Amino acid sequence: MVKVGISGISFYIPKLYVDLSELAEARSIPFEKLKYGLGLERMALPDINEDAASFAANALIELFGRYDLNPGEIGRIYMGTESAVDASKPTATYAVEALESKLEASYGPRSLANCDIVDLTFACIGAVDAMQNCLDWVAAREGRKAIVIASDVSKYELNSTGEYTQGAGAVAILLTQNPTIVAINSDWGVATQSVGDFFKPRRILRKSELFNGNLDPASNYDEVLELFKEEPVFDGQYSNQCYSDRVTEAIKHFESQTNSSFFDTSNYFVFHLPYAFHGRRIILRNWLDWVKASDHFATLQEEVGAPGDDINVWEKAVSKSAYYQSFVKEYIAGGEEASSRIGNMYTASIFMSLISLFEKLSETNQDLSAKNIGFIAYGSGSKSKVFQGSIQKGWKQGLKGLNLFERLNNRQKVDIPTYEKMHRRLQTDPLSNVEKVTLKSIAKDDPTKIGLRTYA
Amino acid sequence: MVKVGISGISFYIPKLYVDLSELAEARSIPFEKLKYGLGLERMALPDINEDAASFAANALIELFGRYDLNPGEIGRIYMGTESAVDASKPTATYAVEALESKLEASYGPRSLANCDIVDLTFACIGAVDAMQNCLDWVAAREGRKAIVIASDVSKYELNSTGEYTQGAGAVAILLTQNPTIVAINSDWGVATQSVGDFFKPRRILRKSELFNGNLDPASNYDEVLELFKEEPVFDGQYSNQCYSDRVTEAIKHFESQTNSSFFDTSNYFVFHLPYAFHGRRIILRNWLDWVKASDHFATLQEEVGAPGDDINVWEKAVSKSAYYQSFVKEYIAGGEEASSRIGNMYTASIFMSLISLFEKLSETNQDLSAKNIGFIAYGSGSKSKVFQGSIQKGWKQGLKGLNLFERLNNRQKVDIPTYEKMHRRLQTDPLSNVEKVTLKSIAKDDPTKIGLRTYA
Repeated sequence: MVKVGISGISFYIPKLYVDLSELAEARSIPFEKLKYGLGLERMALPDINEDAASFAANALIELFGRYDLNPGEIGRIYMGTESAVDASKPTATYAVEALESKLEASYGPRSLANCDIVDLTFACIGAVDAMQNCLDWVAAREGRKAIVIASDVSKYELNSTGEYTQGAGAVAILLTQNPTIVAINSDWGVATQSVGDFFKPRRILRKSELFNGNLDPASNYDEVLELFKEEPVFDGQYSNQCYSDRVTEAIKHFESQTNSSFFDTSNYFVFHLPYAFHGRRIILRNWLDWVKASDHFATLQEEVGAPGDDINVWEKAVSKSAYYQSFVKEYIAGGEEASSRIGNMYTASIFMSLISLFEKLSETNQDLSAKNIGFIAYGSGSKSKVFQGSIQKGWKQGLKGLNLFERLNNRQKVDIPTYEKMHRRLQTDPLSNVEKVTLKSIAKDDPTKIGLRTYA
Repeated sequence: MVKVGISGISFYIPKLYVDLSELAEARSIPFEKLKYGLGLERMALPDINEDAASFAANALIELFGRYDLNPGEIGRIYMGTESAVDASKPTATYAVEALESKLEASYGPRSLANCDIVDLTFACIGAVDAMQNCLDWVAAREGRKAIVIASDVSKYELNSTGEYTQGAGAVAILLTQNPTIVAINSDWGVATQSVGDFFKPRRILRKSELFNGNLDPASNYDEVLELFKEEPVFDGQYSNQCYSDRVTEAIKHFESQTNSSFFDTSNYFVFHLPYAFHGRRIILRNWLDWVKASDHFATLQEEVGAPGDDINVWEKAVSKSAYYQSFVKEYIAGGEEASSRIGNMYTASIFMSLISLFEKLSETNQDLSAKNIGFIAYGSGSKSKVFQGSIQKGWKQGLKGLNLFERLNNRQKVDIPTYEKMHRRLQTDPLSNVEKVTLKSIAKDDPTKIGLRTYA
């Protein structure tokens, strides 16, 4: 079978960030809990003229620039997002429109006129779904190239338990045959269950209840107003349980296809990371099942003893053991570092975890060719996908100049009062002044255009 | 290459409908304009406890029943919709949840636990995108089976120009290798341009402007409220132009791959139909280009004369010519009939057009094997896909008992005052009493569940 996978990666992170030590202080929470418990240091903050479409546009434009792509060769641009700016028009179309203007000088207008574009929605796993579908498409005919964009804004209520895990940004990846960076294997473990662990519903308001029939603020006939909110409804504990259960089921499904152990055959793991240390926490039980079935269980028990009556106490000891920590350091930690400095990127988190891993690996001089990366994806609602990729010999060259950590160091800090003003949408002027695609306006007056977004 | 395509079809149309002669009278519009100009007779109306998720559930459950499907064999359930009930959790998950409860007695709980589920969004073309991706997936390994659901509510403002074209419902299709009903060829013409011809934005309201700071009706911190509306923003004339332009480009792209004429090689056409006669109107110019390049142009000119100074006048004459009308009757009309009685089903329209064509063809005794259907799909925002399917010899058997027209005759008429009350969401009790999946409740109180929908 033809080899398919990733031959290019780019990303966009907003220029603004909040320092979590300052946020912790403002909320009277010990920062150590956030830093050492969850791995949180900074969170990326969209400027007021940025959204999932502008992030996507910037990542996409960077991808074209980095790899000098010819638009005529790109047959697909698929996007995973749960921060769509419209319920009908794909957010990906805005990104492609911005790219086409950028390319116009070199390639003329509408250089992507025959490119297939669409959005996929399944919470944080939509871009993984987009990638799997595009890989099948790339595999089916020689010469095909596809791009997948993951772009999201993770916004939670002020003072809520989710507030520390906010983040934002986009990753774009180029998919080809005979990939230069990572080849993705065609066995995928999948597990699904319809649950309401995290979702973004409309909030229903009845005018008659709100205004006693005296006021009619929105000029429409409807008795019912449906409010959209970027902030999700969620149950954190329950969502962790769903993540853990789905991943366990997906690993089992994966192994039933490959007849091999997912742990045995993976050298590194990248996760969907709602917060930096989520992967190392969630995977502990699966790791334990693997260790128990191996020769190494004795080594672990030497350190932490045998499981006692309270399994939770023992598992906590395992999580702190040198033995588990060395596993985390070798297999997981590289993929966490970006998340510590960005926060939750929803669909883009797992791809940013991959970039982070590569950036950390590039600091060493190991020969990584044929090393396997285990991907653990999750989307609330709920679904997990588990699959593997093998690192290709061109990976270092392919990622040259991406400079993730350098770019993360070069951002602008926003103080807490300003952050709160932005969150509440009282801030009316953008704070950053970057030469990037930004939201220019939202149409107001023309009834056939109202709500339409223009990017510049 | 392995043959892939459609081996099963089911649908769900709401039990309620509005008679367009009554709506025309209420709006002081001649009904003849709607009936003979646009092909409109009735429009399907969702009951107040129905939405895109409940439609999808009903179509999906019917598909399982009709073809006695084994859930363990279904690897994918993908959905195209622009009426998603949530911005993060896929609407498809609700449909699968309802199906799983239905199957529980025979197959136990979570019989689709390893099924891949996701929503695709690109206005009216999202389900075609889902189908194309699932066909690639089905083709890649023997034994794979996938389901695609198209489900939507087409709702326009009262008294608006879109009001007559409302409709609702869902179609589900089963995709397999060696299909029994239609094999879908692997050449796809695609044309895209990012435009704002029709979209579903949030309407932005500033509290400070609305309430002068005195009222805070929604208990949240935001200065800005974003209102979701089912009704789109659109420019009908412009959208027709976009449809026509994209289709022309997609046909060209299709022909550049197949090196054959799309018209020469198609025996029937099915379209995305915003209203019943939209296909025959939009395709006239493409048909004319084809006729001009053929031996038949002389025949046409015998009837309508040569093109004069005003091309629009001549084209209008062509559209009314017996020569064009016989083309419409033979190639297009069969696919229109369902639309006349249902209205716009958005993503499901093109699939309903296919069912309609088959139902009309089954009334005759022609041998249809190897006859080709040309599919012309469009989604605002904007994208067209053009592809072909060849009818398989099991088609009649595969569609036996679907009884489209019989079921459409067996609906409950809603009078105009009641329809308006439902539209404005003042109606609080459901009108129909069908044993189908319906929306039971939307969570209100539990802050971790607010907005979550439950279906029964």
